[in-house]
Amino acid sequence: MDAEEFRRRGKEMVDLVADYLENIEDRPVYPDVEPGYLRSLIPTEAPQDPENYEDIIKDVERVIMPGITHWHSPNFFAYFPTASSYPAMLADMLCGAIGCIGFSWAASPACTELETVMLDWLGKMLQLPECFLAGTHGQGGGVIQGTASEATLMSLLAARCKAVRRIQATNSDMSEMEILSKLVAYTSDQAHSSVERAALIGGVKMKKVPTDEHYAVRKDMFMKMVEEDKADGLLPFYFCATLGTTPSCAFDKTEELGPLCNEENMWMHIDAAYAGSAFICPEFRPLLNGVEFADSFNFNPHKWLLINFDCSAMWVKKRADLIGAFKMDPLYLKHENQESGLVTDYRHWQIPLGRRFRSLKMWFVFRMYGLNGLQAYIRKHVVLAKEFESLVRADKRFEICADVVLGLVCFRLKGSNELNQNLLKRITQCREIHLVPCQLSGRFVLRFAICARKIESHHVQKAWQHITQLTFELLQEPEH
Amino acid sequence: MDAEEFRRRGKEMVDLVADYLENIEDRPVYPDVEPGYLRSLIPTEAPQDPENYEDIIKDVERVIMPGITHWHSPNFFAYFPTASSYPAMLADMLCGAIGCIGFSWAASPACTELETVMLDWLGKMLQLPECFLAGTHGQGGGVIQGTASEATLMSLLAARCKAVRRIQATNSDMSEMEILSKLVAYTSDQAHSSVERAALIGGVKMKKVPTDEHYAVRKDMFMKMVEEDKADGLLPFYFCATLGTTPSCAFDKTEELGPLCNEENMWMHIDAAYAGSAFICPEFRPLLNGVEFADSFNFNPHKWLLINFDCSAMWVKKRADLIGAFKMDPLYLKHENQESGLVTDYRHWQIPLGRRFRSLKMWFVFRMYGLNGLQAYIRKHVVLAKEFESLVRADKRFEICADVVLGLVCFRLKGSNELNQNLLKRITQCREIHLVPCQLSGRFVLRFAICARKIESHHVQKAWQHITQLTFELLQEPEH
Repeated sequence: MDAEEFRRRGKEMVDLVADYLENIEDRPVYPDVEPGYLRSLIPTEAPQDPENYEDIIKDVERVIMPGITHWHSPNFFAYFPTASSYPAMLADMLCGAIGCIGFSWAASPACTELETVMLDWLGKMLQLPECFLAGTHGQGGGVIQGTASEATLMSLLAARCKAVRRIQATNSDMSEMEILSKLVAYTSDQAHSSVERAALIGGVKMKKVPTDEHYAVRKDMFMKMVEEDKADGLLPFYFCATLGTTPSCAFDKTEELGPLCNEENMWMHIDAAYAGSAFICPEFRPLLNGVEFADSFNFNPHKWLLINFDCSAMWVKKRADLIGAFKMDPLYLKHENQESGLVTDYRHWQIPLGRRFRSLKMWFVFRMYGLNGLQAYIRKHVVLAKEFESLVRADKRFEICADVVLGLVCFRLKGSNELNQNLLKRITQCREIHLVPCQLSGRFVLRFAICARKIESHHVQKAWQHITQLTFELLQEPEH
Repeated sequence: MDAEEFRRRGKEMVDLVADYLENIEDRPVYPDVEPGYLRSLIPTEAPQDPENYEDIIKDVERVIMPGITHWHSPNFFAYFPTASSYPAMLADMLCGAIGCIGFSWAASPACTELETVMLDWLGKMLQLPECFLAGTHGQGGGVIQGTASEATLMSLLAARCKAVRRIQATNSDMSEMEILSKLVAYTSDQAHSSVERAALIGGVKMKKVPTDEHYAVRKDMFMKMVEEDKADGLLPFYFCATLGTTPSCAFDKTEELGPLCNEENMWMHIDAAYAGSAFICPEFRPLLNGVEFADSFNFNPHKWLLINFDCSAMWVKKRADLIGAFKMDPLYLKHENQESGLVTDYRHWQIPLGRRFRSLKMWFVFRMYGLNGLQAYIRKHVVLAKEFESLVRADKRFEICADVVLGLVCFRLKGSNELNQNLLKRITQCREIHLVPCQLSGRFVLRFAICARKIESHHVQKAWQHITQLTFELLQEPEH
């Protein structure tokens, strides 16, 4: 395909993209396919000779679309949102064309420098403490990770390295393995599975702190665990706080927990993967209070800030902590500006070596929406969640299972877990809307997350009508 | 920006992309900017209100382009290639529009299933042993990782977990920490820095095996190290072989090394990040011989197979080894088809949870090029590398420093490292072509990698003329 054909096909693709997103509501949100459906629809081997582009495009509708869960449908209320916007898609096209790999400053200075400045822009939108910003002389700074899982892992590895060095400095007789065997990390019993996974990867113990009736970690319980572990000869070194847990969007009490972590020389990482975007609104910013005690902070603009996946924003107070853990400089990656102090080589900040020019997406979105536009977007979603909450509360057959703070509503039918499992099964089978469950205090709960960029009040109303209709049918059945 | 405006802006962007790539040769390949150049060119904060799209596009030329290292310029010969093609870019546009997150089968069945089948297609192109393919009943299978670094890390973690379980099964008195402290991994002294980094992350020792005069690991040296370590009470568990090392594109002797690893119960991972693409050509396939002994194999189609970053293909013989290491199933990620045996939940195969629909790029590229087109592309690059090799060999002032097998030529001026450093410095400062160095046997060596999709013989000839012109000037100077 030469440039001339690309100009034609690219413009057709732009229309295909716009058509897909404009008409997404006409498609069932959840696909009706069985595992293995796709293999029989395409050949078993790649073609020997080039095919026609038209045939590929026809196959998008024939092969791909029947198996798509349409995350951007206004009938999609599952998991948490994944961001999508036209400015981000335009920036991604440019990113693909430039196609640079930004592992070091020299590998494409603009790729690195725009990222540093965009993370400063975003940090200011969140009113992050100055110490997290890079500026021109700061010790902190931000980086785009692929996902929150990687940000958590990087923070845990940096904390592990820092703890080993600190403990060895005062206990020179302790081997690294001995220290590692005594290190203990903590997180909420509501934390995302990726946090526990980070500890498994890092080869350190992780303990789950029981949460209060709002599913939040509080100081008293956490301090008790730390004290007991210290008495047992263990070495507490890391706490991953969650602001906006996945099951119920609960918020750990970081204002209480942060000072304790600081006193105990424990690294505090804050994972606000979903909720973080809301902190750009002054009325939600208090939820981030306590970040001043954290060593690192992360959230996903690719969830709720209109920047297509992947774009997970992470800041550290001391970038030396992060890059000190794994800095390696083979000759083929060295460059002459490396030691100037002004240069950031992002490969030391992350697990992968290569990286795309993802900050272009941030730049396009921030400028095309402006802070006001982004705040309006967040607020609209929160209003819609509250609207859904009111509908649930007005129906005595249902109950709300957790505080509705942002865009997630956890609810259930009063009654058995089985009853709620049956309700969700019917919802899934109808394919008109899509939700996923969670477990709260042993109860099977339905999660209703406001997700789509183009969702309106009437979608929420229609979803609720659908849920109550299925509830009506379910409760008619003899066994209930 | 609504759909209507996106249709207009998207088509403009398609032209911008085509214009950029058609005229890329007119730009200096390496940017003339100082560290920190970008910050002063844009505001210190995000705008409060939306800006004009035209202003953003103007800023691409004003702010971004001056700081770009143009990886797709035919004058770019640095690092290794990073892939770029129009079909891949079209697929990426579609990927952005669908915008699904494929962490589980249910999260978007097409995203998971197309990936499994594309990795089978690609595995067949490489003539991988059947056991690496998923098929409908296989125990193996492929996955798209973001980068080779992540593939290496995943293989090391899986090997670590498998080794601990195996050793504990027969030595129930050994604690996990005791085992970890004795585990030892190996790789070539020419291996990529990410391999050593994987061991640091995984908290295990890694030893570097000295290479022969072709920069390859051979059995005798490796066996000696393993025997000595076993005699010292250590537990060898993992070997990362490299096919196509970063410094000189050398090939470890996997046909000798594989049986040894199998006998010693060591996991053999093969990292063929760059060279792997060439194995689709029958004449280069013998370089992959020995893969039948490996537990996992990885290469980067995003380097040399025309699929834009990121797309790193990894296969394992037993997928249970990979997913068994870190499987976690919180309720919000469970789905009803999970236990059917036919379903792949790729989140268990990788470090991140989320993932884009990257197999679309493979599907578009394989179909638009066909196997013949892809082979022709590889062969053309190899021919051009040989052409450059001939030019160097014909000039008595220069020497070739390593076998030229694929698209990389390592060469230097006969003389001191300082002389070669000065030559490279001049090349970099002229910005007409771009190369990076490596170190081979203590010597400073220039790497000339065939990179761009649109490179032709005349670019290679012009590059050599430029190098010899700069050499002439350099050797004229009094100090030489």
